Amino acid sequence: MKLSRLGEFGLIERIRRRAPGGRGVRIGIGDDAAWVSHGSGSSLITADLLIEGVHFDLKRTSLFALGYKSLAVNLSDIAAMGGTPAYAILSLGIPGNLDSKRIDEFYRGFNALAKQYDVALIGGDTNVAESIIISVCVIGHPPLRPVCRSGAKVGDDIYVTGTLGDSALGFKLLHKKVTSTNRHSIAQLLERHHKPTPRLAAGAVLARRHLATAMIDVSDGLLQDLGHICGASNTGAVIWNEQLPLSPAYRELAGKEGTVYALSGGEDYELLFCARPRHRKRIEKLKAFAQVKITRIGSCVSADRRITVLDSGGKPLALPIKGHDHFKK
Amino acid sequence: MKLSRLGEFGLIERIRRRAPGGRGVRIGIGDDAAWVSHGSGSSLITADLLIEGVHFDLKRTSLFALGYKSLAVNLSDIAAMGGTPAYAILSLGIPGNLDSKRIDEFYRGFNALAKQYDVALIGGDTNVAESIIISVCVIGHPPLRPVCRSGAKVGDDIYVTGTLGDSALGFKLLHKKVTSTNRHSIAQLLERHHKPTPRLAAGAVLARRHLATAMIDVSDGLLQDLGHICGASNTGAVIWNEQLPLSPAYRELAGKEGTVYALSGGEDYELLFCARPRHRKRIEKLKAFAQVKITRIGSCVSADRRITVLDSGGKPLALPIKGHDHFKK
Repeated sequence: MKLSRLGEFGLIERIRRRAPGGRGVRIGIGDDAAWVSHGSGSSLITADLLIEGVHFDLKRTSLFALGYKSLAVNLSDIAAMGGTPAYAILSLGIPGNLDSKRIDEFYRGFNALAKQYDVALIGGDTNVAESIIISVCVIGHPPLRPVCRSGAKVGDDIYVTGTLGDSALGFKLLHKKVTSTNRHSIAQLLERHHKPTPRLAAGAVLARRHLATAMIDVSDGLLQDLGHICGASNTGAVIWNEQLPLSPAYRELAGKEGTVYALSGGEDYELLFCARPRHRKRIEKLKAFAQVKITRIGSCVSADRRITVLDSGGKPLALPIKGHDHFKK
Repeated sequence: MKLSRLGEFGLIERIRRRAPGGRGVRIGIGDDAAWVSHGSGSSLITADLLIEGVHFDLKRTSLFALGYKSLAVNLSDIAAMGGTPAYAILSLGIPGNLDSKRIDEFYRGFNALAKQYDVALIGGDTNVAESIIISVCVIGHPPLRPVCRSGAKVGDDIYVTGTLGDSALGFKLLHKKVTSTNRHSIAQLLERHHKPTPRLAAGAVLARRHLATAMIDVSDGLLQDLGHICGASNTGAVIWNEQLPLSPAYRELAGKEGTVYALSGGEDYELLFCARPRHRKRIEKLKAFAQVKITRIGSCVSADRRITVLDSGGKPLALPIKGHDHFKK
């Protein structure tokens, strides 16, 4: 079967089923990060591979932003388990005719974020390549109980941090004609696209206080990532379209497309999590520690009801196209 | 400065100088693997990036061998620190039109070696790409004191495991006309090229018994990797050309090129290490535990004498071209 038919998630499931297991693996393939033992200690581990022409275009991003983002997306995975990042491994494929100053710019972006979160760069590999390839692996310290995708129960509330859709809308507007009135708003959206903020404080406090029953970071679009939680937890979900947190810039620029980018745009790197309704007040109070706003956007329902988005009148929306799959066209 | 002028090792040094440090880093950039703390435990971490068209050509290798080798080269780095591998992260870039059976073949090779050494595959990332990209990260358990490149002293003996040059000579002969008499020998060399054996038992026993003062795996050629030990340890080295361990197949096929491939061919994935002369007998006895022969090939001298290879008459050889640099042409 061609990969374009099997799809990214079909492939991952195939790999997972055949993957050799071993002692010390507490969480293996299939969550935001793996959790493994080292003697009496343990660690969270995650990896991302970014490829020029697939994930980024140097005409539309600076190398500084690329360095920053390549670390940020991995820190976001550690955040989604409730962990604290500690070490990074960075492997690069680099065209041989690139000037070393351009590589310095990449490392400045990477190191700027690393320093902010006290992440040490401990190794990697450098190779010549036709185009830029970035492979990052981040190792973090877990909370007492890392938060998986599989812990949601029917009746749980569904929350998301920050605002949704900014990154995808910003990316879409990158090449649109910019009027003087909305230049500032577009810049705000693009900042979110190029320099996503990993929600480490929010993830850590949710895990430490055992408030999140399931958690994931929104990288492939809200609905797709919610689908991963529902699949792993065996629930369905109802999302209230009116409650989706949208930034002023998004509201200004989305126009007739409404919440499409918020629902399935991807690259938000916000945390999507579930919690018991009895913890609503505690989560309300958490906002100061989490350093980001937290919005209740829906509720877990039985699995047979799948995922529904309701409009303000309580009627199901026709769902927009699902999020990203690297292999399907 | 163009990367092709700065070179791979110039770039790595530049990255190392600017890399953000952090608590818990016991060994950072610049050895075969990093060594970091996790609470009261610790781990070794190494990574390698393999790119189609740079590191391999699908016309000359099977996907099974590619999967096998992409893990083997990382296990070799763990062996060079004296560690035991435990977990692997595998990220892949895959052309969308590739049949999933071909990917299965890759995973069969990877998993075969992983099972042999009890390494669990715990995660990774899969992406569509123009050509195949393989990024592997291996996490291992360290010995009490991992063996660095920097511990050699003037007067130390220099040893290497197994035989040298088989892989590089095999690769060179891949497209030569094969006569019926040497087909078997070529196959032996190619087996070493496609399926290198990580010297984990040897590395572990040398570290556990505190016999190796410095160690590295031979990936870029004996002389280049010896240069890394000498650079880190501030010594020079004398190597006796006659003592280089050569396989019968190598002796049969190297012809007038003599020890050129053994000295600088690369991709041997044997362990090169130094030890005190007073431990010669203990190292002699070690061979059973190490599951591979160990040959004394030289001696550490003062740094100003650099690296010399002596022929059987004690005269310095004109050294062959140095080993591999990804960026220099």
